[in-house]
Amino acid sequence: MEFPPSDDWFARGLASDNFAGIHPAVLAHLATINGGHAMAYGGDVITARVKDRFNQVFGKPVDTHFVFNGTAANVLSLSAFAKSYGSVLCSDVAHLINDESTAPERLLGMRLIGLASRDGRIDPDALERELRRGHGVHHPTPVALSLTQPTEVGTVYAVADIKTLADIAHGHGMAVHVDGARLGSAVASLGIDAGTMLVDAGVDVVSFGGTKQGILCGEAVVFLKPELGRDFPHWQKHGLQLASKMRFMAAQFEALLERDLWIANGRHANAMAQALKERIVGIPQVEITFPVQSNAVFARIPPEAIAPLQKETFFWPWDAGAGLVRWMCAFDTTIEDIERFAGILRQHFGG
Amino acid sequence: MEFPPSDDWFARGLASDNFAGIHPAVLAHLATINGGHAMAYGGDVITARVKDRFNQVFGKPVDTHFVFNGTAANVLSLSAFAKSYGSVLCSDVAHLINDESTAPERLLGMRLIGLASRDGRIDPDALERELRRGHGVHHPTPVALSLTQPTEVGTVYAVADIKTLADIAHGHGMAVHVDGARLGSAVASLGIDAGTMLVDAGVDVVSFGGTKQGILCGEAVVFLKPELGRDFPHWQKHGLQLASKMRFMAAQFEALLERDLWIANGRHANAMAQALKERIVGIPQVEITFPVQSNAVFARIPPEAIAPLQKETFFWPWDAGAGLVRWMCAFDTTIEDIERFAGILRQHFGG
Amino acid sequence: MEFPPSDDWFARGLASDNFAGIHPAVLAHLATINGGHAMAYGGDVITARVKDRFNQVFGKPVDTHFVFNGTAANVLSLSAFAKSYGSVLCSDVAHLINDESTAPERLLGMRLIGLASRDGRIDPDALERELRRGHGVHHPTPVALSLTQPTEVGTVYAVADIKTLADIAHGHGMAVHVDGARLGSAVASLGIDAGTMLVDAGVDVVSFGGTKQGILCGEAVVFLKPELGRDFPHWQKHGLQLASKMRFMAAQFEALLERDLWIANGRHANAMAQALKERIVGIPQVEITFPVQSNAVFARIPPEAIAPLQKETFFWPWDAGAGLVRWMCAFDTTIEDIERFAGILRQHFGG
Amino acid sequence: MEFPPSDDWFARGLASDNFAGIHPAVLAHLATINGGHAMAYGGDVITARVKDRFNQVFGKPVDTHFVFNGTAANVLSLSAFAKSYGSVLCSDVAHLINDESTAPERLLGMRLIGLASRDGRIDPDALERELRRGHGVHHPTPVALSLTQPTEVGTVYAVADIKTLADIAHGHGMAVHVDGARLGSAVASLGIDAGTMLVDAGVDVVSFGGTKQGILCGEAVVFLKPELGRDFPHWQKHGLQLASKMRFMAAQFEALLERDLWIANGRHANAMAQALKERIVGIPQVEITFPVQSNAVFARIPPEAIAPLQKETFFWPWDAGAGLVRWMCAFDTTIEDIERFAGILRQHFGG
Repeated sequence: MEFPPSDDWFARGLASDNFAGIHPAVLAHLATINGGHAMAYGGDVITARVKDRFNQVFGKPVDTHFVFNGTAANVLSLSAFAKSYGSVLCSDVAHLINDESTAPERLLGMRLIGLASRDGRIDPDALERELRRGHGVHHPTPVALSLTQPTEVGTVYAVADIKTLADIAHGHGMAVHVDGARLGSAVASLGIDAGTMLVDAGVDVVSFGGTKQGILCGEAVVFLKPELGRDFPHWQKHGLQLASKMRFMAAQFEALLERDLWIANGRHANAMAQALKERIVGIPQVEITFPVQSNAVFARIPPEAIAPLQKETFFWPWDAGAGLVRWMCAFDTTIEDIERFAGILRQHFGG
Repeated sequence: MEFPPSDDWFARGLASDNFAGIHPAVLAHLATINGGHAMAYGGDVITARVKDRFNQVFGKPVDTHFVFNGTAANVLSLSAFAKSYGSVLCSDVAHLINDESTAPERLLGMRLIGLASRDGRIDPDALERELRRGHGVHHPTPVALSLTQPTEVGTVYAVADIKTLADIAHGHGMAVHVDGARLGSAVASLGIDAGTMLVDAGVDVVSFGGTKQGILCGEAVVFLKPELGRDFPHWQKHGLQLASKMRFMAAQFEALLERDLWIANGRHANAMAQALKERIVGIPQVEITFPVQSNAVFARIPPEAIAPLQKETFFWPWDAGAGLVRWMCAFDTTIEDIERFAGILRQHFGG
Repeated sequence: MEFPPSDDWFARGLASDNFAGIHPAVLAHLATINGGHAMAYGGDVITARVKDRFNQVFGKPVDTHFVFNGTAANVLSLSAFAKSYGSVLCSDVAHLINDESTAPERLLGMRLIGLASRDGRIDPDALERELRRGHGVHHPTPVALSLTQPTEVGTVYAVADIKTLADIAHGHGMAVHVDGARLGSAVASLGIDAGTMLVDAGVDVVSFGGTKQGILCGEAVVFLKPELGRDFPHWQKHGLQLASKMRFMAAQFEALLERDLWIANGRHANAMAQALKERIVGIPQVEITFPVQSNAVFARIPPEAIAPLQKETFFWPWDAGAGLVRWMCAFDTTIEDIERFAGILRQHFGG
Repeated sequence: MEFPPSDDWFARGLASDNFAGIHPAVLAHLATINGGHAMAYGGDVITARVKDRFNQVFGKPVDTHFVFNGTAANVLSLSAFAKSYGSVLCSDVAHLINDESTAPERLLGMRLIGLASRDGRIDPDALERELRRGHGVHHPTPVALSLTQPTEVGTVYAVADIKTLADIAHGHGMAVHVDGARLGSAVASLGIDAGTMLVDAGVDVVSFGGTKQGILCGEAVVFLKPELGRDFPHWQKHGLQLASKMRFMAAQFEALLERDLWIANGRHANAMAQALKERIVGIPQVEITFPVQSNAVFARIPPEAIAPLQKETFFWPWDAGAGLVRWMCAFDTTIEDIERFAGILRQHFGG
């Protein structure tokens, strides 16, 4: 097919929340704070006050830093636990192991090991099994566990799930990282605050998403145990993540945190995913494959239907051969978008 | 001193062009293109058309990519020439060797070697000398020469200077990289176009500045020999530089290139530096140390004057012990700012 | 238990072929060539003639280099195919992925991916499956396949097996590496020469074992396609593998290749493994788990029997919880050692 | 010239102490301990007792490990102090910065910075100057000072010199490493024991030479503050330096330490250098350039004399264009070798 088939073809499809634009409140805030000069590299007053704002989000003093994208947030978060002979454990569907090229190996110098997952959540038994193997100097030593909340397949860990995994990890001297690219969706889904979800469960550091939650570009690395981040400015510098005009990175988060916009965005996207699920659950050729707990709907459809449907509105296959596809809602997805998409499916499948 | 001494203390000082904000035209353009969804990671129409726009800037087909900051642009540019046993030669005042922490070593795995410079420009004899040493497998092999235009001390290479260095480098099988964080100032200073300055001199790849030239964040890596950039998307990905909402990175450059705003910004900043020079050249305690050819004025002042002057308006010492300081003009520096600063100097020194 | 329980406790047990000493012919040869001075770093006549000797071993011009140990041989072999965004595929029981710590990640900067194996051999379907996934810039690109001959569990690939895997790999633009730490055992087992086994199957580079085949320390990296090794001396240097008194590394191999001592050593060790198998095959509590095709016998025994048996004579468990153990024969294992060990087993199990 | 011009051309020339062979006592000892099996990877009794022997050498409990070559010893010693944003300072004539390719950058991920030296010794003022620069996160942070004893140009630091440098380094939170590839020559030259020379001066870790002092291959890394080496076995493993038949690495050092053979070797080589100096000091075209304090004589000769003299007996130019050459004595250099070489010089220069 010609690509894209038309100018407005992408207009608010369900391909990804990173196909969305900038939330208007974010752009407006940038305009508000623009003008004048300010200390570069984070020495300005805006950066200071937004870092402070994160203490409120988590209900305790944390250590927050702003980086450019999600891969950077994940890799630099894990720098706090890096050992030259270490490994990082994550789920076998983790973005970290599937979608970040060789960044973890190159920047951390460590091995990634994917653990078996169920509905996108790391199986505690698989974690225990991996930790039992041991191998002295011959095998990499696990230094950190990374889990994703919500998971890459749209499910959400209960707080007790996180605590179970974190306790196992800590019991083996490992640290716990949470990839929260869409953390607002998880917070909205569980109906609890971020501190209860992560701090109480013992998480050490969080990649707090920005881009997928509505800003232009940026993620926050939040050390929930602030002493862990002491050297972060150095890692950030040699990790190519030190913005000179840092106040504009911070200001985007200021807009996102204002009146919990990030959670509102997540709640809205979650609601759109539920709406989609409800509208397509009866179509026989569409089997919903994972519990819909955040802003994603995963479904198995006849593999040969993928290409013609993509022509109508683009989306990503998850496993094309198996007919597994992903439909993703964003902060700006409307109920009309959902109706339109459900209509396309029903029309295609004669539902 | 308390820091900062007052709220408006930074207001358009001469500390750095990265203390400046976002050029209004850039922010306006972001608002214009916002809305709707678009393919992520650079597969969108805006990114495509801005890449095409760079062909016009250099007067030939080039291969352009957008990254987040200057260190990233430099390091990833040099990835094209990386050998595991290689070295990169640059001037001893280069940003690359003085201000990018261990990023070059960690991401390229190569040695940096600083060459003697005169007025910030690499001395061709120093380059020849380094290339003569040779050492088989025992010493790193030079793979690239990196030069900065304008230099870190505000001077500008003549086209013939670049060609001389590039010819030596190419004659030894090395590539040539130009760090053009403030390239518009050089283009304005020489009064020639970017193609004449760089393409004709044989440069292989350019870090084309964005942030210091007026945008929120971003630099372009421009391969003047486009085949060199074939694998860049991979380096960009594992180098933590692949923006998911890439169209907003590209769009900032679209605004910057529109009617040569980047050159106009450079021309204006250069003029402000000249205005400053003219106003302070007669102050006996202020010795201007390098030819003022772009947007920076370097001066030697009594070392004990640095602290009290910084209290009036912040600026960076270049070598505090030697009294060497740097005053930098930006796209938004006004003649009133210059008058004010010159007045502060005259008042302090009783000029 | 006190460790070791007695002075002669290790005397020719079945723990590993790297518990063995130096073959007397090797030590004698070192004494013969000692005396006088010679060019360092491999510029001597002995190194030249031993490299030449490897051409005969493989029946064609190859490019041979001597390194210190097996991990170095594997990692530096793979340097020839390194891409910053690459991955190396190997079996899930490979020494490379299980026993070399983070050396592959740190020195190659690439991802290791373990493929499902059957009896230690990579399953071609698992290879095809992995190669089908694809992921553009987001997932590492496979650049090499590494297989072990004989495998880590003592089985041997038929030439046709190697060719099948090599053809798949080459068809996807990948290279093929063979970890031949015990290559002589494989050559003896198949009854063919090394060229027929590896060159004809299309292998690109081999880690040709030395230490486990009877020398003090050293492995040869043999590029069967010699142009691939052109930069090897540089990798060897920065890979900490350039011996200054190189002639003594080469000379050890000279002794090992003399009258095919390496194959004779392999044949003898294989015969000892067969002898062990024959003597224990009837013990009900001892289940031999893999075909005995080289110098190793793997068996499943009651897990609680491991510790008391280790007190009699040390050996390594392969998976202690599952009762899986490994008994390994060396060039100096005698039939009396085998009888003694079989006797210990029979006595313990009342066989 | 054809190379080498004849078979016996290298016979005990003055090219390098790594052109020498294996000291007979070392080879004899290997033969003595050969036979039987022993735990691999250093778990054997010989390795344990040789490590213990090093405690006696330094007069205190130290932590000793055996690696394959000098570059490995240097790089892995420095691993103890590695920070991702760190730099290592050394002299501008250091082997570390001139002769180890990119090993330091690749394996440590840190910057090397060469300091001005006088007669091969680091100038304390140059060290202080470098430490004063500071640069926050933008410039690498010095973590270790590496000095060479004897230096690369054959001079020897007095104990007070080492202490001065070590005090400065420790005062800035840095560690101190000594590259002792020819440590026996320094000990013999100063007439003191190794503990007095290094422990009392505050040195943290030493690369204790083996190869240049008379063994086949191997260096010891000795942590004088043993807690620093706790993780060394991991670094050794992923640094490609873990010998499986470790007892033979240790045993070579056992022979070298027996009755202080290493010091006797150094004393002899030093005496040969003095003998050479005495015999050539009057030749007008030969200017001895550095104090002869260990086993090397550096001289400036007419550049055009280098090639014809090399035809007589090979040696390395240090700076060919400047006519600077190096003549090196080894444990097996005889007074006849010296007479012969001095004769060649006198004959050539008509002295």
